Amino acid sequence: MSTPHPRIAARMAGIAPFHVMDILARARQLEAQGHAIIHLEIGEPDFPTPRPIIEAGMAALNQGDLHYTPALGLPQLRSAIADFYAQHYGVQLSAQRVIVTPGASGALLLALGVLANPGDTVLLADPGYPCNRHFARFIEARTLAVPVGADTGYQLTPELVERYWAPGIKVVLLASPSNPTGTVVPDADVRAIAGICAARGATLIVDEIYHGLIYEGSYHTALAHSNQVFVVNSFSKYFQMTGWRLGWLAAPEWAIEALDRLVQNLYLAASTPAQYAALAAFMPATLAILETRKAELKVRRDYLASALRELGFDLPVLPQGAFYLYAGCGRFSQDSFAFAAQILEQTGVAITPGVDFGTHQAQRFVRFAYTTSLPDLQEAVRRLREYLQP
Amino acid sequence: MSTPHPRIAARMAGIAPFHVMDILARARQLEAQGHAIIHLEIGEPDFPTPRPIIEAGMAALNQGDLHYTPALGLPQLRSAIADFYAQHYGVQLSAQRVIVTPGASGALLLALGVLANPGDTVLLADPGYPCNRHFARFIEARTLAVPVGADTGYQLTPELVERYWAPGIKVVLLASPSNPTGTVVPDADVRAIAGICAARGATLIVDEIYHGLIYEGSYHTALAHSNQVFVVNSFSKYFQMTGWRLGWLAAPEWAIEALDRLVQNLYLAASTPAQYAALAAFMPATLAILETRKAELKVRRDYLASALRELGFDLPVLPQGAFYLYAGCGRFSQDSFAFAAQILEQTGVAITPGVDFGTHQAQRFVRFAYTTSLPDLQEAVRRLREYLQP
Ligand SMILES: Cc1ncc(COP(=O)(O)O)c(C=O)c1O
Ligand SMILES: Cc1ncc(COP(=O)(O)O)c(C=O)c1O
Repeated sequence: MSTPHPRIAARMAGIAPFHVMDILARARQLEAQGHAIIHLEIGEPDFPTPRPIIEAGMAALNQGDLHYTPALGLPQLRSAIADFYAQHYGVQLSAQRVIVTPGASGALLLALGVLANPGDTVLLADPGYPCNRHFARFIEARTLAVPVGADTGYQLTPELVERYWAPGIKVVLLASPSNPTGTVVPDADVRAIAGICAARGATLIVDEIYHGLIYEGSYHTALAHSNQVFVVNSFSKYFQMTGWRLGWLAAPEWAIEALDRLVQNLYLAASTPAQYAALAAFMPATLAILETRKAELKVRRDYLASALRELGFDLPVLPQGAFYLYAGCGRFSQDSFAFAAQILEQTGVAITPGVDFGTHQAQRFVRFAYTTSLPDLQEAVRRLREYLQP
Repeated sequence: MSTPHPRIAARMAGIAPFHVMDILARARQLEAQGHAIIHLEIGEPDFPTPRPIIEAGMAALNQGDLHYTPALGLPQLRSAIADFYAQHYGVQLSAQRVIVTPGASGALLLALGVLANPGDTVLLADPGYPCNRHFARFIEARTLAVPVGADTGYQLTPELVERYWAPGIKVVLLASPSNPTGTVVPDADVRAIAGICAARGATLIVDEIYHGLIYEGSYHTALAHSNQVFVVNSFSKYFQMTGWRLGWLAAPEWAIEALDRLVQNLYLAASTPAQYAALAAFMPATLAILETRKAELKVRRDYLASALRELGFDLPVLPQGAFYLYAGCGRFSQDSFAFAAQILEQTGVAITPGVDFGTHQAQRFVRFAYTTSLPDLQEAVRRLREYLQP
């Protein structure tokens, strides 16, 4: 970045762009020149929004009342989300504790906004979702990024939380499954970390945006372990509604009134068409479509994971969820951004450099998103093989 | 408010709820008991979204690609907004300077986020749109609220800006037309205030969300006066797309890169269905519908303004725009909240107390929104007359 204009606020120096945007821009250039680019850098499902959701959205538009909804969301959608927890996880959750938000993005900013004072610390894992440290920076809070590796499944553990505990930690943030690693925090660890937080007057936020996309094992929502935890989720990934901008936050009772005030002021409310459309998200017909697609994602994961290993990428743990493989590229390069750029130029395969997710070993990792069809993944692997094992 | 939970961040003490929500909740109760409530408290047009916009939205849904758009918005929508400035105002604006946002709400938070440091001061008018002081509070900035009255059309003037200038003022925020007063800042004043800001190293933000709803006189956008000003606008009010959550921000070139980073992190992007739908907002067929509705709003304003004056409300200036009348109720009460509550109980007419818009004489004003049909306004006036002039 060049020197910022003198009127730009200081916080902006701590808010980085997504480096993958440079990769994406170059990919678009190459495409414009006629090259066939395979996009493995995109953090959203390639599937279209399921038809029943689209049809519910169209019916809502056609009916025409698209005014603001209540700040906390349509009551019937809050209930539907609460019911989903009962049916899917066997967890009783009052609809009063569910807040409909503009994406998990909105839920994360709201949760941090009501919990963290300027100078307070948010404890989180490195690598992790980059926006988290920027949400914290935006509200003048600090982050303490704990380096995590394959030994802990790239996740915080109760031991790591204890070891890194410091005065001023007010929030611990987990993402399970994680972006970029796809790994899940075991139930016992979530419970133990919630306990540590409770004992020390801090609050646990768990981002479960990829929780619907866990391919094996059965994992509880953090809401099953504690009614003091903030759980972030979204219609973006499992429900494949990224562009609709809709998510939710389940919060303890004591936080709802403050969250209501904050939603009123920051957002007024979440999108009305999206909320009506999402009422169809939990219908059996929709869930059937989503489960089929999830099975397809698992096939892709299995294929790509073993192909990458065979190519020489380091993949010590097979991630249980999301649609990412966070692969060590140390055998090929010590500069993941340069490596990603080079792969793009030489093979037309676009991937995300580790530097987008933190600093810990970020130069030796790249993220592959299997958000494209199996034939495309096969073609990508063919090209990579040709380039890396000539 | 009761004592907040100890884990709630300090900023939340400075972020007030909308008091009108209490009025609204009581109105819903009365409705549930069978009372016919007339809603003059609602800050959004009663009209449905124009049909061509709905149809463009439905076509976008039906086509199915509802992934994230680029952070700054669909290129074709950014161009359409830039073209609108050329056609409507004769102002040349590069599409590169237009950012599509989640409502004017998003635009205001982004603008303040890139401009104001913690402790910096935002100068604005009291009464004014309540979220503004809360956006500032959210990012740890201060506000200096200048009491404004009928003598300056309830707006800041260059003289007031000079008089209240203080070290630490980094942003001056105008809304023209204003919510709650509907009054417009004259072109010469916008130009002069932009000049004062430029001379003192501060930045002017002008919220033009109601600019499409000016019923007489011809006013320029602030972009005509300076290329250093931030202009906020929205598809919510004139374009009648409130629930879609779509707006825009036109900013100086030096701020675009920082704004891009902030949108990427805070929002990812604005709603995809809304952006495709909004492409139809500038079509002649849509504008024809909107202009008819605007004419209807003017008829309502003229009727309600003279009726309120006749009833004994104080309305020294006839507002040129928006859909609000900010009326002095000093003849009836010195407690605008109690007055609004009482009016609701006794007449079934819901209005907004002045306390939602600041502290300056807030107890002696109430806001009437003419976002309901003329017959309903007439019925409201009949009921008020019966109660106030028995
Ligand atoms: C871990 C994680 N959390 C939150 C988000 C935000 O998603 P959205 O705002 O679309 O719900 C993302 C998106 O990529 C993510 O990967
Ligand atoms: C003056 C003003 N600015 C901004 C907004 C936010 O509108 P939106 O986010 O729907 O565009 C409003 C809404 O009432 C308003 O009155």
